[in-house]
Amino acid sequence: MRDAVPNLTTAHTAPLLRFESLLLARAADIEAWFRKQWLATAPPFYGSVDLRNAGFKLAPVDTNLFPAGFNNLNPAFEALCVQAIQAALGRVLPDACGVLLVPENHTRNQFYLENVAVLRDLLQHAGYKTRIGSLRPELQAAETLRLESGRELVLEPIRRSGDRVGVDDFDPCVVLLNNDLSGGRPPVLENLGQPVTPPLGVGWSSRLKSQHFAIYHEVSAEFGALLGIDPWLVEPLFRNCGQINFKTREGEDCLAGNVELLLEDIAAKYKEYGVREEPFVIVKADAGTYGMGVMTVKSPDQVRNLNRDTRKKMAATKEGKEVTGAIIQEGVYTFERWNEPGAGEDDQGATAEPVVYMIDQYVVGGFYRVHGGRSNQENLNAPGSTFKPLAFAEPCSHPDCTLPPDARPNRFYAYGVVARLALVAAAREIALALAREPVTRRAEAA
Amino acid sequence: MRDAVPNLTTAHTAPLLRFESLLLARAADIEAWFRKQWLATAPPFYGSVDLRNAGFKLAPVDTNLFPAGFNNLNPAFEALCVQAIQAALGRVLPDACGVLLVPENHTRNQFYLENVAVLRDLLQHAGYKTRIGSLRPELQAAETLRLESGRELVLEPIRRSGDRVGVDDFDPCVVLLNNDLSGGRPPVLENLGQPVTPPLGVGWSSRLKSQHFAIYHEVSAEFGALLGIDPWLVEPLFRNCGQINFKTREGEDCLAGNVELLLEDIAAKYKEYGVREEPFVIVKADAGTYGMGVMTVKSPDQVRNLNRDTRKKMAATKEGKEVTGAIIQEGVYTFERWNEPGAGEDDQGATAEPVVYMIDQYVVGGFYRVHGGRSNQENLNAPGSTFKPLAFAEPCSHPDCTLPPDARPNRFYAYGVVARLALVAAAREIALALAREPVTRRAEAA
Repeated sequence: MRDAVPNLTTAHTAPLLRFESLLLARAADIEAWFRKQWLATAPPFYGSVDLRNAGFKLAPVDTNLFPAGFNNLNPAFEALCVQAIQAALGRVLPDACGVLLVPENHTRNQFYLENVAVLRDLLQHAGYKTRIGSLRPELQAAETLRLESGRELVLEPIRRSGDRVGVDDFDPCVVLLNNDLSGGRPPVLENLGQPVTPPLGVGWSSRLKSQHFAIYHEVSAEFGALLGIDPWLVEPLFRNCGQINFKTREGEDCLAGNVELLLEDIAAKYKEYGVREEPFVIVKADAGTYGMGVMTVKSPDQVRNLNRDTRKKMAATKEGKEVTGAIIQEGVYTFERWNEPGAGEDDQGATAEPVVYMIDQYVVGGFYRVHGGRSNQENLNAPGSTFKPLAFAEPCSHPDCTLPPDARPNRFYAYGVVARLALVAAAREIALALAREPVTRRAEAA
Repeated sequence: MRDAVPNLTTAHTAPLLRFESLLLARAADIEAWFRKQWLATAPPFYGSVDLRNAGFKLAPVDTNLFPAGFNNLNPAFEALCVQAIQAALGRVLPDACGVLLVPENHTRNQFYLENVAVLRDLLQHAGYKTRIGSLRPELQAAETLRLESGRELVLEPIRRSGDRVGVDDFDPCVVLLNNDLSGGRPPVLENLGQPVTPPLGVGWSSRLKSQHFAIYHEVSAEFGALLGIDPWLVEPLFRNCGQINFKTREGEDCLAGNVELLLEDIAAKYKEYGVREEPFVIVKADAGTYGMGVMTVKSPDQVRNLNRDTRKKMAATKEGKEVTGAIIQEGVYTFERWNEPGAGEDDQGATAEPVVYMIDQYVVGGFYRVHGGRSNQENLNAPGSTFKPLAFAEPCSHPDCTLPPDARPNRFYAYGVVARLALVAAAREIALALAREPVTRRAEAA
C-alpha cells in the first residue's frame, strides 16, 4: 500500500538530488536574486506553470498568465492566497477597492466556473468588492449560475461609459482578466481609465510561446550563472517556425528541419549527461492554449506524413483560431506517477506533472495534473486528465534545511523555484507588451 | 464532552453578534479603510495584541511591538508568516539579504528561546541569511544552546565597526529587534547605517502605554465614525498619572482620584448599555512589560491602603526599572473560557484571552492565553498562564460571509480587525518616535 502522493519512478535521481541540494544550500542567495528580479520588473498579478520532472532535469513547459484552476488548490492555502492578492492588488493600485473580474465566455465547463467562484471568493476575502463582468455578447442582464459545489455565480454584462467599464451601478477600480483573449482584444476593454491586469497585450491574441521561452532562455542563463549550473537543467530547448499552415502543408519543411535540428541538440545533451532515454520534441501552436494542437514527435518524418485527422486537429486551437506559427519544444519526460491510496506495489500509477500557482511574487500552492491514458512523453493537458488538489501539503514556498533534499517540502521548494523562473520571464514579457502599447493604453500597466 | 476550543460564557452575546454582523457586512469597507491607513503610515514590522472579549465590548488591552510567542502559533501558518516577512522586510529595505536578530538577554526562559528559534527559522525560510546578535555584555564568543524542541540556537556577540553592526564576519542589511529595550537604548545600536526595526524609540525605555492608548483613542474614533458605532465598543477608557512612586506613596492622590473618575465613566457606560457587571480598572506601569506591576482595582480606597508587599511588587518592573508613571485602564472582562477536551458540561474552564499576531499589515495567527488561577477581571499575563497554540484553526485574516457572525472564522475575523486597529495606533506611535529622533538616526526608519 502506498500513500496518495506522487512518486518519482526513474533511475535518474542523482542529478535531481544534486540540484535540490544546491537549491537548499543556496536558498538565501536564490531568494535575494528573486527579490532583485521583482524590484527590476514587477511580477504578474498571477500565473501558473506546468513543470516536468525528468529526474535529470526539471523544467517549465507552459506558463499560463490567466490561471484557471484555483478550485484545484488545497483550501488550507486560502489565507496564503488572500494575503498574496492583497499584495498583488496593492501593487496595481494601492487604494483599489472594487474589482471587476472578467472570466472566459464558456459557461458549460463546471470546473472553470468553480475556478471563477473561488477566485471571486478570494478577492472578497481579501477585502475587495468583486463582481463578475462577462464579455458574452448575448448576455443582456445578470445571469445566476448555481454550481455543483453549491456556490452561486452572478455573471453581469459589462457596460462601458466613457473610459470606464463596470456592471450595473458598480464602478470598479481595477479590471482583473481571467480570460486569455484567444478570441482577440475586446474593444470594450481598450483605452480604459482603469488599470487592466494582466494587460490586454499578453492575451493569446498577441502572446507567443516562442517569445516567452526566448525570454526564459535569458532568465535561466542568469540563474545558471548565479548557481554555476548548466541552464539546460531547468530549461526546455526550443525552435520555432513563423508560418505554418497544417491544412495547406505550408511551412512543412521548416517544421521538419527544425524538428531534426532540435532532436540533434537534445541527443547531444542526453549524451553529455549520460541519459539513455529517447529524445522527443513537442510541436504546438505558438499562440494558443487548452492543449489543442499539441503533438509528440520523435523524427522529422513524422511531421511530413501527417494524416488528415491530425492535420485538422493541429490546425485549430481554442475558439477556432487557425494556427499560423508553431513552437518546437524539447520534450521533457515526466517521471512522476500518481498512485491512488491502496494501490499495490506493482501498480505503476498514472502519469503526473506538477502545476504551480503563483499570485504576485508568491507561490501559493499547486496540484498534480494526472492522466492515466497518456505516457510520460505526452502532453497531459488533455481530455481525461484529473487534478489532485491535496497532493501539495506544503505550498512550495520555502525549503526545510533540516530535511533531506528530496523530502517533500524541499522537492516542492525546487518546483517553486523553477516555476518562479518562468514567472520572471512572464514579468519581462508583460513589460515588453506594455512598452508596445500606444501611450494612451499604458494606464493598463499592471 | 466539549471540544478543546474557547467558549464565550456570558449572557451579553447580543451586542457582540450585532458587532460581528456589522463587521461582516462592511468587511470590504473595513479592509479598504485599513489599506488607506497603511498607505498613510507604514505598519510595524510585527506586533501582537492582547484582546479581551466581554461580549458587550471587544478591546485591546496591550500592544506588544516585540512579540515573543511565535513558538505558540499554529505551525500550519508558517507559510503565511514567511510570506508576510517577505513583505515586511521588502518594506524596510527592498534589497535586504542578511538579518541580524537581536533577542532579549535572558537565556533561561526556554519558551522565549523557542520563540527566537522559530523567528530565526521563519526569516531563513523567507530567504534571508539570519544570525542572532546578543546584547549580553558578558558574551565573548558564540554560544550554542540546545533547546527542548531539539532546535539549536547560536548566540553571537554583536560587534560594531564604524556605523555598522554584525556578528563575526556577517554584515547584515537589517537589524531586527526582538528585545523590548526595558533596560534602555543600547549604545551599540545607536546611529547605525543599517536600518533598525522596530526603531529604538519604541523600546520600553521610551514608550508609554498612555501614548499608545491616546493614539488608539483617535484610531477607534475614526473607525467608529466609519461604521457608525460608539468607539467604546472597541476601546478601553484610560487615565494616567505622570509621577507615581509606590515606595514613597508620592502621587497616591492622583492615582486614587483618577481611579474614582474612571470607575464613574465606566459605570456610566455600563448603565448606557445595560451592563450589570461591576466596573473595575487595571493599574499598571506606563512604561514596561511582562505583567509585573499590574493590579485590579474596584475602588479608590484600594490604592490608598496598599500593603508593603503590593507596593513592592508595583514599584518594580522588568530589569528592576522603577515605575514612575502609571496608566489607569478600564478593566475589560473576559468572558472566554478554555475547556480541555473531555471536560464535563459543569466544568467552567479556565479564564482565557486571545492574543493576535501580526507581521507587516497581515494577521498571521494567534493563540489563547489561559490561566486557571485567575478570574475574568484579572491580568492573565502572569506566572501560571499557558498557551493554546492550536486554538486558532483560522488565522483571523478573513471572514466567511456564508457562515453566521459567531462562527469561528467570523469571530476570529472580528479579533483580527480589532487587533489591527491597535496595530494602526502602533504605526502612528512609531512614526512619532521616528520624528523625535535626531536626523542622523532616521536611517532606523522602519
